[in-house]
Amino acid sequence: MKITTMLFVLYGRQAAAFSTRMARTAGVVSRPMATAVDGEATQHEESITKMPDMEDIVSLCKRRGIIFPSSEIYNGFAGFYDYGPLGAELKKNIKEAWWKNFVTQREDVVGVDSSIIHNPTTWKSSGHLDGFSDPMVDCKETKLRFRADQIFYAPVILEENGERVGYVCVQEGNDETMVKDAKKQAKALLKEKDMKGSKIEAFAFKEVVEATEEEMAEIPSPASGKPTLTMPRDFNLMFETRVGAAVDSDNIAYLRPETAQGIFINFKNVLGSSRQKIPFGIAQIGKAFRNEITPRNFIFRSREFEQMEVEYFIPPGDDVWPEFHQKWMDDSKDFLLSLGLREDLMGWDVHEGDGLAHYARACTDITFKFPFGEQELMGIAARGNYDLTQHTEGSGKTLDYFDDQTKEKYIPHCIEPSLGVDRLALAIICSAYAEDEIGGEKRNFLKFSPKIAPIKAVVLPLLKNKEALVSTARDIFEKLQQRYNVAWDATGAIGRRYRRADEVGVPFCITVDFETIEDDAGVTIRDRDSTEQIRVPLDEVIPYLSKAIDGY
Amino acid sequence: MKITTMLFVLYGRQAAAFSTRMARTAGVVSRPMATAVDGEATQHEESITKMPDMEDIVSLCKRRGIIFPSSEIYNGFAGFYDYGPLGAELKKNIKEAWWKNFVTQREDVVGVDSSIIHNPTTWKSSGHLDGFSDPMVDCKETKLRFRADQIFYAPVILEENGERVGYVCVQEGNDETMVKDAKKQAKALLKEKDMKGSKIEAFAFKEVVEATEEEMAEIPSPASGKPTLTMPRDFNLMFETRVGAAVDSDNIAYLRPETAQGIFINFKNVLGSSRQKIPFGIAQIGKAFRNEITPRNFIFRSREFEQMEVEYFIPPGDDVWPEFHQKWMDDSKDFLLSLGLREDLMGWDVHEGDGLAHYARACTDITFKFPFGEQELMGIAARGNYDLTQHTEGSGKTLDYFDDQTKEKYIPHCIEPSLGVDRLALAIICSAYAEDEIGGEKRNFLKFSPKIAPIKAVVLPLLKNKEALVSTARDIFEKLQQRYNVAWDATGAIGRRYRRADEVGVPFCITVDFETIEDDAGVTIRDRDSTEQIRVPLDEVIPYLSKAIDGY
Repeated sequence: MKITTMLFVLYGRQAAAFSTRMARTAGVVSRPMATAVDGEATQHEESITKMPDMEDIVSLCKRRGIIFPSSEIYNGFAGFYDYGPLGAELKKNIKEAWWKNFVTQREDVVGVDSSIIHNPTTWKSSGHLDGFSDPMVDCKETKLRFRADQIFYAPVILEENGERVGYVCVQEGNDETMVKDAKKQAKALLKEKDMKGSKIEAFAFKEVVEATEEEMAEIPSPASGKPTLTMPRDFNLMFETRVGAAVDSDNIAYLRPETAQGIFINFKNVLGSSRQKIPFGIAQIGKAFRNEITPRNFIFRSREFEQMEVEYFIPPGDDVWPEFHQKWMDDSKDFLLSLGLREDLMGWDVHEGDGLAHYARACTDITFKFPFGEQELMGIAARGNYDLTQHTEGSGKTLDYFDDQTKEKYIPHCIEPSLGVDRLALAIICSAYAEDEIGGEKRNFLKFSPKIAPIKAVVLPLLKNKEALVSTARDIFEKLQQRYNVAWDATGAIGRRYRRADEVGVPFCITVDFETIEDDAGVTIRDRDSTEQIRVPLDEVIPYLSKAIDGY
Repeated sequence: MKITTMLFVLYGRQAAAFSTRMARTAGVVSRPMATAVDGEATQHEESITKMPDMEDIVSLCKRRGIIFPSSEIYNGFAGFYDYGPLGAELKKNIKEAWWKNFVTQREDVVGVDSSIIHNPTTWKSSGHLDGFSDPMVDCKETKLRFRADQIFYAPVILEENGERVGYVCVQEGNDETMVKDAKKQAKALLKEKDMKGSKIEAFAFKEVVEATEEEMAEIPSPASGKPTLTMPRDFNLMFETRVGAAVDSDNIAYLRPETAQGIFINFKNVLGSSRQKIPFGIAQIGKAFRNEITPRNFIFRSREFEQMEVEYFIPPGDDVWPEFHQKWMDDSKDFLLSLGLREDLMGWDVHEGDGLAHYARACTDITFKFPFGEQELMGIAARGNYDLTQHTEGSGKTLDYFDDQTKEKYIPHCIEPSLGVDRLALAIICSAYAEDEIGGEKRNFLKFSPKIAPIKAVVLPLLKNKEALVSTARDIFEKLQQRYNVAWDATGAIGRRYRRADEVGVPFCITVDFETIEDDAGVTIRDRDSTEQIRVPLDEVIPYLSKAIDGY
């Protein structure tokens, strides 16, 4: 065991720059990161991190008690997940770090915790009742339902004479699988029409949302193989339920599809009970629900998820919002980096044109390169005064603000940084996933930053049958337990115990050895990432950990 | 301003004993608290605490930004509430204190965070689908629905000859209002039958759940005044929703009515991914939903609420559970007292006979005297192995445990301490509600214990236009802000600022005055409850607060 006298490891911030997002759709145009830092490669970091595939992640999460499929003993339930012992701590730490950073450490943001089920008129005013939907097609025969933007059709056209002999229809996938499926269908079609062997043109796929009624009458359902699809219809993503005693259908309510509206409808209540003046923000963390037709990518797009949102209210005027918007983008990026997210996997995605809601001034996403592709991690939107105006109209109660400096009354505009807890947890796990070699032996470990690591430290007496070692270690353990989630591990060879700690991402292993008790030489604290150890006097253990974990 | 040199105030534990609960129903028999402490009245405490009525509490909660009715701008939504800035912090602190006490500070309990929507088979196995219901009657005319145990009927019997001339039917209330309503109905009945002036016997009320079909044909609905009630039918309290793409009715799922089942169904997952051995517990905090027909008493019985539950798994055997059950009762009581609950308002309620579920070994509630009466605050149940057995049968997966010491395999039994976050918040607010006199002036304040106070301290520069005062105060404020939710208040007379802090329950006011900057004499820290002040050196401020808030 190599023991050095002092070692500092920097967590979180890495020198690689945010990446630039490739344009996804017509409405999204990427731009380079405003504050790119060039050049400095972080060789050590790169040598021990790798991009895992999703199978690795899902299996690791199950094995280590981070995330389980919901109701697994009942064969699961698509789109729902349960957090195990480590995952529950990780999620809790993420939420606490966010709340600390954006609420308690700021004077201009206060929190709320509103109910998941609101008076349903909320969703009429907010536009969710009419507009929060995906176009769907039903297969009349199999009763299966598809998102109309996730199935694609193409005419089958003979190369020799341009004749259209029918259609193929395939579900979204990569180019290869879509073409393969389409070819199979076309082959069957030609066989059926006694045209086996005829050559056909390359497929020109379109989303079925673009199909005319005439075309739909011929397009085969991916489920039945026959033209049994309905025309696209809007399918609301809000989960419905019925509340209360009435027997009639008047009592439909919805599970909130976002936490933001619980903030807007409490704007006046918060204004009236706190001493905030604009600019100020209201923050909320809580569950939200969306009846995704095709939940996928593990906890990235699930039907039940948790959000962390702020509505930051500012004065109106098109010269006002850009500065606030930029500040929230910068603060959001800093926050994400402080949790140990890999900067080289992050990017900006600027919504423009059709990619922007009609009322929005701007929206920029922070993206993350997940194993399944680069996707939105969080959005920072400048929403104008759309929401407060909508609720003013819907409720008849004017959600305005009186500025006692300028003596002006106005409906405030707002900046909305919106972040998914589950997505962030996934990005953190992907960022933490690492392997290296120690003494020629491969090591798999999780590089959670001390701030959000589920277990902060493990206390290890060198030998479990030496009373003096155990009782000293026990003292340290119990003291640490008052502050942090720490573990005790007295069983097995010390190297094996280190490895166990590495596997669940414990940043510090604190070992009590004979020098501790015989020479009053303090303990060793081993750093997970470098595996190096330093000696720390007993009364310095808490300050040392506090510095690394809490930053003070 | 009186300044003493040192003052220690003990929070939380008060000397008055738990009260003994009066038997509510045939199935509930009260018993004195096992560890009663006699005699010692806490005079100071009692002189400044009083039992508020519910109107005071509701209005205080709204005014101070603790709790608002949900969707208030849309005229609210019965049974749902939103927590404002102070309430969100209070609730967060309660949950954190619970998690710290029962999860991170124990080696034998780990946490999970399971989804609100499970595979619906969960509720079939757990018995909720068939049994989690209240008997309801519908009024066929008005379509209103009543809980059958909350409306009462009585025959109207002539005193002269014992003849029954009809029935009255009233909703639950206090004796006076029920009798008044019944008399009015009887009078109208006699008038209708040309018997005006006849004397009738005293009403003998029964719940409509006991009415025969013949009686129901004559009992008037409280809504229509005519016999339009249906016979009682079971009405499931779980909220239903539909999940996923299928168009048919196969896809009904439920919002969980309790967090406990999310623990049981993950028993094997947790066992397989953690290193726990029996006895050990799994804890969870999360939202649960019950479609209460008559939500009432503010956040005490709401339709959306939050629970904190542990399932503590133990070996089978009727000699095993009593000790664990007692330990959990003791630990639960200690925890509640540590949050500042008034012991004189707490009691035990032992379920026996019919009051105990058929599979349960024991269940004891800790009660609290709310302004609307003494009610269950938390329950500590010994549930046998009912739940794991049910899920074993329902899923076909054996939820058992192999004891590698005794080489025995068994389905563990469990102890279930179950506590409502919202109820506890209400009990804390009731316990904190206080008034006294200072210099002949009445003061209303909230005696939140430092541990769960939403705002831990306010930092006050004596004068806001003295740069040196402000910058020193600002330094302290910013340092504290790294650790705690603290406030800055520079405006108004110092006495007024103290009062503002008292009103929202801030335990400590830290004042920077001229002695601070000129004589390096530290700051004054004022204790909210005694209003006494001590001088504390600058570098002792954090240790002083940490001791009071964190206990270390």
